[in-house]
Order: sequence, then C-alpha cells, then structure tokens
Amino acid sequence: MGRWEPNARERLAKAALELYSERGYEQTTVAEIAKLAGLTERTFFRHYADKREVLFGGSMALQELFVHTVTEAPESAAPIDVMAAALETVSEVFVGRREYSRQRYAVIAANAELQERELIKLASLASALTDALRLRGVAEPAASLTAEAGIAVFKVGFERWIAAAEERTMSHFMRESLDELKAVTAGD
Amino acid sequence: MGRWEPNARERLAKAALELYSERGYEQTTVAEIAKLAGLTERTFFRHYADKREVLFGGSMALQELFVHTVTEAPESAAPIDVMAAALETVSEVFVGRREYSRQRYAVIAANAELQERELIKLASLASALTDALRLRGVAEPAASLTAEAGIAVFKVGFERWIAAAEERTMSHFMRESLDELKAVTAGD
Repeated sequence: MGRWEPNARERLAKAALELYSERGYEQTTVAEIAKLAGLTERTFFRHYADKREVLFGGSMALQELFVHTVTEAPESAAPIDVMAAALETVSEVFVGRREYSRQRYAVIAANAELQERELIKLASLASALTDALRLRGVAEPAASLTAEAGIAVFKVGFERWIAAAEERTMSHFMRESLDELKAVTAGD
Repeated sequence: MGRWEPNARERLAKAALELYSERGYEQTTVAEIAKLAGLTERTFFRHYADKREVLFGGSMALQELFVHTVTEAPESAAPIDVMAAALETVSEVFVGRREYSRQRYAVIAANAELQERELIKLASLASALTDALRLRGVAEPAASLTAEAGIAVFKVGFERWIAAAEERTMSHFMRESLDELKAVTAGD
C-alpha cells in the first residue's frame, strides 16, 4: 500500500464505528480497525490520536460551523433567530448521515467515558456560542441563555431525529424543538 | 478520638475544600484532609469513597429535592411554572452557602476530571427532571425541553450568583435568568 490512501480518514471512522457497534468500544483495538479499513495502524495514527478520537473527529468542525453561522448572521437578527439559523445550517451537514449518527449515539450511550467526552464537547460548544453572541453585542445573561437554549434544542432535536423508523429530516426536528421550547417557556 | 465524630461529614468537606483551594485538588491527599479536620483517614472513608466524592456529596440530595418539587407541584401548574417552583425551592438550600459554592466552583473549573463529573451530574439531573415531568403527563418533546430549560437557568443563574462582590440571593438570579430565557425565546 502506498502512502496516499484515498478517504483514509472516513474509511477508518466507518470501520471503527462498525466494530464498536458489533463488539463494543472497549473490546475493539486500533489494529482491528485498521485491518477492517484495509489500512495500517501507522495510517490510523496519522489521522487519529487514539480510538476515542475517531468518534469525535467532527466535533471541532461542527463547533466552527455553528460559531461561523452565528457570527455571520445579519446584524439586525434577534439572538434566538440567529440560533435558529445556526441549527438550520448545522442540520445540512447531517443530511445522509442518520445511520452513522444513530450508531455513534448508541456507542457513546453505552460507555461512561465516551459520554463524559460528549458532554465536554457540548459544554465547549455552549461556551463558544456564548462568546460569539457576546461579540454580536448580546448582553449577559441573554447571551449565555440563548446559547444554552440552542444546545438544549440541538440535543433534544437530535435524539428525536435518530429515533428508530424516523424518516423526517434533522432540520424538521430542530425547528419542532425550537418551537416547542418557545411554547413551554411562554407557559403554553 | 471516639467512634462518634460530631459533624464529621461537614468538617471533612470544609477541610477538603480549603486544601483544594489552597494547593490544588491534585496535590491534596485524603490524609491531609482528615488531619485538618481533626479526624482519621478511616473516618474519612466512612463518609466518602474518595477525595473526588467530597465535592459531590450533595448532588444526589439536590437532585431528589428538585424532582420532589416537580412531582409535588399542583396538578394544574404549567411545566415552566413547575420548573420555576423547583428552582425557588432549591435556592433555599443554598442560603448561607455562597462562599462554599464559590470555592467549590473554582476548584471544579480548574480540573478537567472534576468538570466531567459535574457535567455528568447535571445530565443526570436533566434526565431525572424529564422523567418527573413525563410522570405529570407532560408529552415529549415538551418534557425534555422544559427540563433542559430548567438546567440552563440553574447553570446561568448559579454562575451569576457566585460572581465576585455579589450580594443578592440565589433565588433572585434564578428568577432573573428564567425571565431572561422567556424574553430571548420570545425574540425580545
């Protein structure tokens, strides 16, 4: 095998998730992941620091996209509409990735260490969104609460989107969850 | 020293927090905590599984109080008002504990492992509140979103309450944060 491995990163992620789903995260080794992907361990470590990172390789890109959308929203937009636009943009990244997202969620839910990691990533996202809203001139506590509201909608909408037998888009559930948050806070 | 140690649990918690604040969490040993509290290591381990647990000894009681208030709220109350009542009740437990809460927050913020633990506790609280709301007949996604909204208000209100030079009550900040969440979701 040559040094250039087309789509190595994606192939490794796919192989890892397949093995984590079948035998469990703890029971899977990097050697097995590389083998299933038809690559070497050396190639694995060129792309990921360890077997945990394979599951979180997209987190930083997701955060950057979220923050970018908040930063670039029209100046006149209300904070909650900025957050709605960010959820809409982020949903597009997940088109065609429902089965992958379902499997990833199940693997993470089954392991305490992975859950902690996922919660840290969400806390970091909330913090980055708060900073981005402050930079838009949103005062506190509105900035923090808008960011936390966005994360709440993202979490709840995501879990509904990946439910078994579901076929509607992620974007649908983000809108539904935001509308429902508006309704519950209004006391409906 | 006899087997009966009055207020041993509280003395150990106070001593631990003092040492964690002064020298850092990692650098403090159980032996040092016990010594400062005027107790033995054996007594320490009768009350806490390890030095991390000293910081989270109250989490389960807090969750039970939260859930109890939700469960016992009048049948006719709207979900968000149930959550407001729970935040009010919980605030009472923190009266006179501002300095302790400030120090505990600072120790946790300085250590990744402790932060993960705190996030897990908050996720567990959100999940317990969701279940309690469902038992009241609140449908999904309203139950999850009301619970997440409550946690968001609790987090943001708590951080504002413990800010330096602040003298207003925790209850004040819980009300302020909930009002602000209502305002931002309404698009104000």
